[in-house]
Parts: sequence; structure tokens; C-alpha cells
Amino acid sequence: MIKPRTPAGVMELLPRDQIAFQRMLDTIRQTFERFGFLPVETPVMELSEVLLTKTGGETERQVYFVQSTGALGRADEGLPELALRFDLTVPLARYVAEHERELAFPFRRYQMQRVYRGERAQRGRFREFYQCDIDVIGKDSLSSRFDAEIPAVIAAVFERLAIGAFTIQLNHRKLLRGYFEGLGIAGEMQLLVLRELDKLDKRGADAVRETLAGEGFGLGAEVIDKLMAFSQVRSHGHADALAKLEALGSGGALFEEGRAELRAILEQLKALGVDESRYALNLSIARGLDYYTGVVYETTLDAWPQIGSICSGGRYDNLAGHYTKSKLPGVGISIGLTRLFYQLREAGLVAAADSTVDVLVALLDDSGLEHALALSQRLRAAGLNVETQLEARKLAKQLQYADKAGIRFVVLRGEDEAARGVATVKDLRRGAQFEVPEAELTAALLVEREQQRALG
Amino acid sequence: MIKPRTPAGVMELLPRDQIAFQRMLDTIRQTFERFGFLPVETPVMELSEVLLTKTGGETERQVYFVQSTGALGRADEGLPELALRFDLTVPLARYVAEHERELAFPFRRYQMQRVYRGERAQRGRFREFYQCDIDVIGKDSLSSRFDAEIPAVIAAVFERLAIGAFTIQLNHRKLLRGYFEGLGIAGEMQLLVLRELDKLDKRGADAVRETLAGEGFGLGAEVIDKLMAFSQVRSHGHADALAKLEALGSGGALFEEGRAELRAILEQLKALGVDESRYALNLSIARGLDYYTGVVYETTLDAWPQIGSICSGGRYDNLAGHYTKSKLPGVGISIGLTRLFYQLREAGLVAAADSTVDVLVALLDDSGLEHALALSQRLRAAGLNVETQLEARKLAKQLQYADKAGIRFVVLRGEDEAARGVATVKDLRRGAQFEVPEAELTAALLVEREQQRALG
Repeated sequence: MIKPRTPAGVMELLPRDQIAFQRMLDTIRQTFERFGFLPVETPVMELSEVLLTKTGGETERQVYFVQSTGALGRADEGLPELALRFDLTVPLARYVAEHERELAFPFRRYQMQRVYRGERAQRGRFREFYQCDIDVIGKDSLSSRFDAEIPAVIAAVFERLAIGAFTIQLNHRKLLRGYFEGLGIAGEMQLLVLRELDKLDKRGADAVRETLAGEGFGLGAEVIDKLMAFSQVRSHGHADALAKLEALGSGGALFEEGRAELRAILEQLKALGVDESRYALNLSIARGLDYYTGVVYETTLDAWPQIGSICSGGRYDNLAGHYTKSKLPGVGISIGLTRLFYQLREAGLVAAADSTVDVLVALLDDSGLEHALALSQRLRAAGLNVETQLEARKLAKQLQYADKAGIRFVVLRGEDEAARGVATVKDLRRGAQFEVPEAELTAALLVEREQQRALG
Repeated sequence: MIKPRTPAGVMELLPRDQIAFQRMLDTIRQTFERFGFLPVETPVMELSEVLLTKTGGETERQVYFVQSTGALGRADEGLPELALRFDLTVPLARYVAEHERELAFPFRRYQMQRVYRGERAQRGRFREFYQCDIDVIGKDSLSSRFDAEIPAVIAAVFERLAIGAFTIQLNHRKLLRGYFEGLGIAGEMQLLVLRELDKLDKRGADAVRETLAGEGFGLGAEVIDKLMAFSQVRSHGHADALAKLEALGSGGALFEEGRAELRAILEQLKALGVDESRYALNLSIARGLDYYTGVVYETTLDAWPQIGSICSGGRYDNLAGHYTKSKLPGVGISIGLTRLFYQLREAGLVAAADSTVDVLVALLDDSGLEHALALSQRLRAAGLNVETQLEARKLAKQLQYADKAGIRFVVLRGEDEAARGVATVKDLRRGAQFEVPEAELTAALLVEREQQRALG
């Protein structure tokens, strides 16, 4: 006998949790489609040679390689032919380059699939997890107007997921680089300084200040003041965001370009009707410095900052330089849904969902089977999800089962009801019960279900 | 520069094909839920030790093992810890055994995920493919009434997929075994005889007859006649199915048990209102002889028999004997959707779908941007999928783009329209164009879309 168990670092759900998870996936997909993004799925296995062009040693250690039985043990032949994707960005780059001539640009795609990382297993860290990505890829160029559409999608997704107030935080790499260069901080040093500034919350201002003034950095007090002030800029509301941008003073060409683009994004978000509480400047965020080149986004739940960013991304200059000579600039974001779901559940913000089953057609004794089957099919034809109780059991057992499973309605038809041409409906949610003429049963249940949906 | 390409043996689709595929997945999922099945997803990676208990050498050779970089080259340590699932049945067995105490039985689950086989790549063979499975698992016992519900689900799925007339073919392992035993053919020999009978179409009656009479089998002419007659039984319509069952003559206890169960299944299919053209006896089908123990199903497209079975399954005695002492009998089926989609496309039965995007909001010049953004959001709020043209281009280009992408409606608002408070809608499907007051635009498009959907 083998102990049945899953590997460490994966998330497997019981049905009612799976339903809750699936509803989040459906909401995200629906919202991505609402904004005109097209579905793409790629194979979970890519050729190692293709997948690993871009990644450094750090990522490579986390890659899962795939070998069929026959190929095992032939370890001396270099890397195995196949590997599991570790994100959806490299497969997108490969996909766009491979199908370049068949796609229309700007190419707007969404992709919601699992990715794999050979991480050390620990609580809340996943080796297999869903990513839900959107990207817009231009050919040769891509208007910065697309940069403003992305936060509108983020806002719509999280409004519809209804997991609480959130803020989409905006920064801009050109603004950041321009500002740093204005202070005489260039190249690699920018990265190092940003890393230190990122520790402000944890280490406190004094400790960070000391590091920046010390060996390796050697920055003057005035420069440090400016850096700290800059990285602490946060805005509250639309007008404040514009004002805070102005208040940064003047800068070089790169800085002004970044500022103009951020300004345009803010104006476009307003035109899109995105509530001004949903977006804000946060000049401390940087994200993958070697990858993003324009606007960057992070999204946090206002009441749960400790969860960190739940949706991040930004603008990049060239998606697929390893695979094609075409220049493919893009902008996109990613939601790590497995981790988000896990954390929402830990925080008590999502619970097991009601069943996908709307109605249980009960069976009180075997003579009722034929009728129960026909009735179930009638309800299904009207669009209701129906489970038929195929074996007669005590009513109490059937009600108990429905209740535990999260099924709202139980339909009964005993001899008495049959004689009078009615059915009894038990509404387990409201703890109520009513009789309906059989001919009106379908309509009555549909109305109840619609009311339930309208109430959310 | 690396050539961007996918590994052999995977199916990757362009967006309009992906939309068609996704619609099939959605239809199948919706139908599974309509019949009260609950969603389950399991990780793509299982522990090798857990996954490979059940499989013989044949399957094992086709398994993909997974190793992170650090573990590569340690080939002498036996099998790698992780492997990719090769079907959804073993993961179901593991899932049910692992969560046995948290699940309600009979447990009705559906699962639609990708599985992996390390097959030699050849045209139409896939190393990665979707399976769409349903199973009902009982604890200790499971009424044979569930056996009749499964073909009703199959019928509903393929009616809604609308890929042509189909027949669900029924046989029963007890009927088969009982009949063979009545002819003095027992144990292993049944399997060998069935294999020969399976070649009837290919080899012809004379050749099969010769083999069964020859060395190794040594069956008499009368026995061979009976075997061939039995395996050629096909029914047409409900009454004929019952009559053909009667016409088999009498047999032993096992044979009669199988016949009684088949009869009950036929009666229940009638009570469920399944059209009698959708199901038939086919006493030649056997399927996984060591696994199935009761009814077996195969489904074929009437006009495309060469595609083979598109949905198969049956009843089994014990799902998870390797993982738990509980007896878990079940019944289920599987649709290999990747292969089916591939074959339907080859046969010209599915085509690239229209876009998920309902409306393209055109942009004639930059001054219209703010209005286009607000209008797009209004249409989205009403439930329409909208792409906004963010960069002004010639109208002809925008129409051409929408047409190629399969977007039906293009909404325009030039200076003239703006002055009069109207918008122009171009319906690319019908090649028509009409003007609507702006305030009525949302309603007009919703009505058009509903009409389109109603027409399928």
C-alpha cells in the first residue's frame, strides 16, 4: 500500500475550494476578454535550448527538466531536451516570434496557465502555480497609450474579484533613471542604490542613510536627502498625483520624457473612468530593472499590504530579441493566482464556494426514479445544474448531503405531491420550503437562482 | 539567435483556433456541471512512487520524469522523485484515497487538464494533450443506475458540441465474459480471442476464422460461428437493442447479470429522454480488459468512423486499491480533446472561430481618443467585449484589421457623427452599416449580439 499524497509545493483543492478558485479564474478571463485580449495557450514543455536562452544561472537552477524513461541515466549528454516553463513571458516571446507573420499587431493576448519552479519547498512557496498574464506587443513600436489601458484592466479585474480596496501603484523607469542621473548616479549603481532604498521600511531611514553615505556608495548628505524624498513620494487621488509629479522640479530629457508619459497615463485613466482611489504614484517601486524600460505597475490590497504586490508588470523595449530580429516592444502584467488564492484563504478573504450544483432532485423511493430522471433532464434543459439522487435514501440524509455540499435547492415529490401534481422545493439557504405546481417548477427555480445571483 | 519552435508532439494554436478550442472546453465543462459533476484539478507532477504503482513496463516507458537542475546527473539514484501524469485516472485514485474522509460519496467529479506521454512523435500523436474526464466513485458500492447516467452526459456533450451525428456504443464485460465462459473460453484466452475478433474488419472473416481454428486457439467451427455472430451484434433503436439482447439466448449467472444491467441501462436512457439514435449495442467493444468490469462505452461519429472512439469508458470495481483499503467502485469516461480537435480540424469540421472581441471602437483622429476610451468603457460595462483602437489609422486599415481578426462590429464616430450625436456601426458579418443615436448604441449592439448568438 502506497501513501497517497501530493509532492511538496503544489496546491490541490477540495471541490468547494476548487469552485471558488475556478470562479476567480473565470472572472479574470472574462475581464481580460472584456478588454479585447485574445486567448493563447502554450505547451507546458519547451525545448530547453529555446527556453533557457535568456536566463542566468539564478533562474536556471530553478528549472525543471523533463525526460522520458528511455532518456534517464544518459546524464553525460548535456541538458535534457525538454524543460517546464517557469513563467509565461518566455513562451510568449517564443510564440510571437514563431508566429510573427500570422499575428496582427499590436497583438493583445492573455494566457492563464500553470508554471513551474524547482524552488526549495516552504510554506506559501509554490513549485507549480497559475499565472494570469496579459500583454500587448507592438511591431517596431507601440504607443504609450497602451500603458494606460493596462491599469484599467487591473482595476476591472480586482473590482470584479471583490477582495477589498486596492491601489495600483505607478512608477516610471525613465523618471527614475533620469532623476538618478541628475544626481550623478549612473548604470549599475542605480540598481544598488534602489536596493538600499527598498529596505527603508525594514531598516529605517537612519540605517539606510548610513549605508548610502558609507563605503561603496559614498553619497553626499544632500543627494541622500533627495533620493529618500523621491522614493517616498506617494500620491492620493488624481490631482495630487499630477501635483506631486510637478513638484519633482525640472530634470533632464529622460526624466521629462518619463514624467510626460506618466502624466498622459494619468489623464487616460481618468478618461477611462477608473476611480481615482484605484491608482497612485509610488516612486519607490522599480521591478526587474534589467527588463522594464518604461512604466511599472504594482498592485496592493489596501487592508493587506503584507501580502505584497498581487499584480505587477510594466513596459519593456523588446520582447523576443533572442528569437527574431524584429523589434517587439510590449507592456503587460501578471497575476500569480495560486499564491494570491492561498493568501486570501489564509487571511479569511475567500471561503469555500457554494456548489456548482443548483438543484438536488431527491428520491424518496424507487418507484419515483423514472419521474426523477425525466424531471432532472427538464431542469437541465432550462439551464439548471442538477444532481439526481439515484438511490432512495431517508430524506434527512439527502438534505444533510445537499447542505454539506453547498447545494441550495432540493426538489421532492412524494406520493402526496405526485397525486396533487406539485413538487416541494426546499431552499436550504433561506431555510424555507414551498410547493409549486410541477408545470411551474422550472420557472420558479430559475427565478430563485437569478435573484440569488443578483444578490451576489 | 535561436529558432523559436515548440517540441514535437504538442498542439499550439493561433488565437482564432484557440478560441474555437476554448469554446469546446467551455461547452464540455458546462455540460459536466449541468449533470452535477464537481471540478477537481490535480498537480501535473505526482510523486513517481505514487504515480507508478499501477503501471506495467509498457506505460512506464512512456512516462516523463521531472528533475530540477540540481538533481540532474544523479542518475544512479533510481527513478527521479517526480513524474508527469499520463492520465487523469491515477491522479483521481490518489485524490480520492488522500481526501477520502473529506469527500461525500458517491463522489462525482470532472477534471479537464493536460496529460503527458513520452511517445515517439508522429503525425496526429500527442505527447501533451487535454483529457476531459468524469467519474462517479462510490464507497463500498455504487448502484448500476450511475452507469446509465454517463451515456446521458455523453449525449448532451456531443449534441451541444454539434460536430455531427454520433452513436454511443454499449457492451458489458459480464455479458461478454459470461458468453465466452458458456463456450468454454476462460481467463487469459478470452483476451486473446477478443483480440482476434477485433481484427475482423481488417483481416476479414475467413482469416480470423482460420486463426481461431488453428494452433494456440483450436476452437471448433460451431464455437467460432457463435463468437463471430456475438461480436457482430449491433442494434438500431431502442426496441431493437432490447430484442437483440433477448435473441442472445440464455446463459449462466454472470451472462444474465450483465444482460439485466444492460437492459436497465437502456430503460433508464429512455427515461432520461436520450434519443434512441444516440445509443446502440455493439458487442465487439471490450476496452481495457483488466480494468473494466461492467458496462463499457465507446462513442463514434457516424460520418467519421475512421476517427475511432471519441469518448470511452466504463465501470470498474475498485479505483484505488494501491492507496486505500476502502473499496471504491466507479464508472467514468474520458474525452481526448486535443486529438479530437486535431481530427475535426483535419476533417474540416471545426474552423477558426470568430473573435472573442465583439466590438472594435475605431479611432479616426487623435482628438477622438478621450471619447473612444469613455465609449469603450460604457460598452464593456454592459457586458460587451471591446477593443479600442488607440492609434488613429486610416479607416480602411481598421476595417481590414477587424475583418481579419473576426471582430463583427466596428463603431465609428467622426466629426460629422459627433455633431449629430450619433455613431455609425459597421456590421462586418452582414456587410451592413447603420447609424444609432449614441444613447442607444449599447442597447443596439447587445440586441445584435444576442440575435447572432441565437442563430449560433
